[in-house]
Amino acid sequence: MNSLQSYLNTNKDRFVQELFELLRIASVSADSAYSKDVFKAADFVADSLKTAGCDSVEICQTKGFPIIYGEKIIDPKLPTILVYGHYDVQPADPIELWDSPPFEPIIKKTKLHPEGAVFARGACDDKGQMYMHVKALEFMTSTNQLPCNVKFMIEGEEEVGSDNLAEFVKHNTTKLKNDVILISDTGMIAKDTPSITTGLRGLSYVEVEVTGPNRDLHSGIYGGAVANPINVLAKMIASLHDNNNHITIPGFYDKVENLSNDERAEMAKAPFSLENYKKSLEINAVYGEKGYSTNERNSIRPTLDVNGIWGGYIGEGAKTVIASKAYAKISMRLVPNQDCEEITTLFKAHFENIAPEGVTVKVTPHHGGQGYVTPTDTIGYKAAAMAYKDTFGTAPIPQRGGGSIPIVALFEKELKSKTILMGFGLDSDAIHSPNEHYGLYNYFKGIETIPLFYKYFTALQA
Amino acid sequence: MNSLQSYLNTNKDRFVQELFELLRIASVSADSAYSKDVFKAADFVADSLKTAGCDSVEICQTKGFPIIYGEKIIDPKLPTILVYGHYDVQPADPIELWDSPPFEPIIKKTKLHPEGAVFARGACDDKGQMYMHVKALEFMTSTNQLPCNVKFMIEGEEEVGSDNLAEFVKHNTTKLKNDVILISDTGMIAKDTPSITTGLRGLSYVEVEVTGPNRDLHSGIYGGAVANPINVLAKMIASLHDNNNHITIPGFYDKVENLSNDERAEMAKAPFSLENYKKSLEINAVYGEKGYSTNERNSIRPTLDVNGIWGGYIGEGAKTVIASKAYAKISMRLVPNQDCEEITTLFKAHFENIAPEGVTVKVTPHHGGQGYVTPTDTIGYKAAAMAYKDTFGTAPIPQRGGGSIPIVALFEKELKSKTILMGFGLDSDAIHSPNEHYGLYNYFKGIETIPLFYKYFTALQA
Repeated sequence: MNSLQSYLNTNKDRFVQELFELLRIASVSADSAYSKDVFKAADFVADSLKTAGCDSVEICQTKGFPIIYGEKIIDPKLPTILVYGHYDVQPADPIELWDSPPFEPIIKKTKLHPEGAVFARGACDDKGQMYMHVKALEFMTSTNQLPCNVKFMIEGEEEVGSDNLAEFVKHNTTKLKNDVILISDTGMIAKDTPSITTGLRGLSYVEVEVTGPNRDLHSGIYGGAVANPINVLAKMIASLHDNNNHITIPGFYDKVENLSNDERAEMAKAPFSLENYKKSLEINAVYGEKGYSTNERNSIRPTLDVNGIWGGYIGEGAKTVIASKAYAKISMRLVPNQDCEEITTLFKAHFENIAPEGVTVKVTPHHGGQGYVTPTDTIGYKAAAMAYKDTFGTAPIPQRGGGSIPIVALFEKELKSKTILMGFGLDSDAIHSPNEHYGLYNYFKGIETIPLFYKYFTALQA
Repeated sequence: MNSLQSYLNTNKDRFVQELFELLRIASVSADSAYSKDVFKAADFVADSLKTAGCDSVEICQTKGFPIIYGEKIIDPKLPTILVYGHYDVQPADPIELWDSPPFEPIIKKTKLHPEGAVFARGACDDKGQMYMHVKALEFMTSTNQLPCNVKFMIEGEEEVGSDNLAEFVKHNTTKLKNDVILISDTGMIAKDTPSITTGLRGLSYVEVEVTGPNRDLHSGIYGGAVANPINVLAKMIASLHDNNNHITIPGFYDKVENLSNDERAEMAKAPFSLENYKKSLEINAVYGEKGYSTNERNSIRPTLDVNGIWGGYIGEGAKTVIASKAYAKISMRLVPNQDCEEITTLFKAHFENIAPEGVTVKVTPHHGGQGYVTPTDTIGYKAAAMAYKDTFGTAPIPQRGGGSIPIVALFEKELKSKTILMGFGLDSDAIHSPNEHYGLYNYFKGIETIPLFYKYFTALQA
């Protein structure tokens, strides 16, 4: 594409400074203390889309945080790409483990990123990856090379379940009409190994509360004589996996898609070093469902993890108390054909069923989402593969991802179009963790690759 | 005793107001944020002992909080009673469950206490019960009826293990020499059923830390493929009890004192309504070690309870994270012949042993203490029984207590004297819980009964 590299070179510093501005806004959607910041980030995105060349930009209010819609229609007969992304971020906790403040972006060099990486909450997920699309659009409009129509839909509730986006999509199918959906909110295998995510796991997320006695009790007077909600919760959680780490919820595996041996053999070809994996996490062994490899466990198999647990005295020192209540947040990653609502229902019924006498149990569902699989024989996939080939010099590997973007299944259902998951992040980016970062190399590679996708997709569609 | 009742009637209001002053000092020994208050409470106790008639009072500094020592020696040939109590209190958490602020004492009438009860942290444990002894001394000295010598040793670290008291006792055996030790830091069976605690459980208290990956991880990317420290901790905790709720730590029961059927039958005679017990706690069933009654489970049997657990995301909403670390505070109540240090060692070895590959485990012992049994055929016990009989009109029932006052075993070892646990609290006082309170009836009954103990003990000893 004409002058892409030189445009990038001229504007590199500005592209980073603009991203810094966005990263400074603490748009944590899960915590109402940050509401104002989430709205502020929405405004920022709307302004950037205008600046980048969208003809019309709308801040669409919802019951929660706004959805930013922008478009540039150059010719209704040409194909239309819908870009989806999100401007909200995960909470920064545990904040004490960050080496620099999560909302004060800074560039630091690392072993993997000698050219530098941006450290901040949202640097990769998804502000950095979303903003690549804004800057790619700027390049194409300012150099008159936009080959097709483009629509942007950037939301602020991805990290809390996209409840209002679903509503928005259902009510705006005409406005959102497109030929392909393009999302950068996933990763690639390695810095030199581009990949396209062809599957996502679904998600069921619940909060459980176990109540024993009606008040906190002295453990000397009542210890051993009443059900201790923390001990009971631990026992209930433990029972959710058997000794082979299979999940014990009745019916949980009934609809799980089982891959053929050929498919599993194909997957096993992806470059992977178990030694490096363990080293990078500083663990002496991996752990998971019997009969499956690490890469299978985190992609084609469903899982159940406790994401948070709390109860009783957690301050300094010792308190001899039996808590009245204990809590946990539990999520299940689901694979194709598992329905997230059905799984939530199965979990709830099972969890209530296994509660022993002496306690009561409450299960509250949080957001969920369906899994998704993208075929590799579509024009969208081919265009993406060609674009990667141009910028990385090597064809991308199709890869099942372990994460969830619950809205992708809904897009297919409501908008009847396929999604291309063109991610540039790396597993080591520490998204959802302290010290999240995004390599400058990856950021610029994204801005380079996206316009090529537009070019090839338009050409193949013709 | 001459004029006891009339002295009490004249001074009732002042006795309550003085206790209020002490309760307003937030002397939480477990939390360093309250250090200043703990020192302030120490000064208060020293001043009250002087006012009450002690000839000499010392504020004995330790590595932690001071021990207040006071004495009134009227004749070295007369018997000497050593009074022990503590001025520190448990943390007030969970503070949101208090109906009135924990350090703003207030009198409220309840169904059980139509004459009113003092609501505040420490109202019963142990400020209220300790202060009865100060006021009893005041009565005896101001009316010239003190029949023997008295020594006071009031500490500020009972709720965190009395580490420095142990040291103090060992180095001051001559100063502390006595014929009997008197403590009010336990309860009685019911408001109209006085009882003397003849046994206490020991305590082993540990904090455990389970570490998996070196950082918090995204549960989509790593879920199912690495050991989740919270799930692992839950599993490890669950495995500490078998299906009959026996504790599974090898060697744990080896030295447990087993009561004879006769002794158990004697215990079973204490008035107890399982229905009322469940009703007062709003539970549909009790829960505990198979083969034992509720009153056995919380007194003559050792137990293991989680007192606090935490890990991962515990804020509002949902975060799909796999925590790097999970924590729990675990305590074991021990019965006679179980050695607390040996049990801590057994726990540590077992807990480290059952940690699966993929995590590391750290066990940090907090304070511990030995159990204790008091015989009922001593002069001290008899004197206490006579005193109760005078004030309650009925002889007290000997009762094994489930709680722990770790220092009692040490007193016997170092000072060679028996302890009389003359408690006036009730199980419903909610000690260690929100809305701790102490009945005015109990407070005044204590002040009445204590001088009678002095009288009878001196007479029996003669």
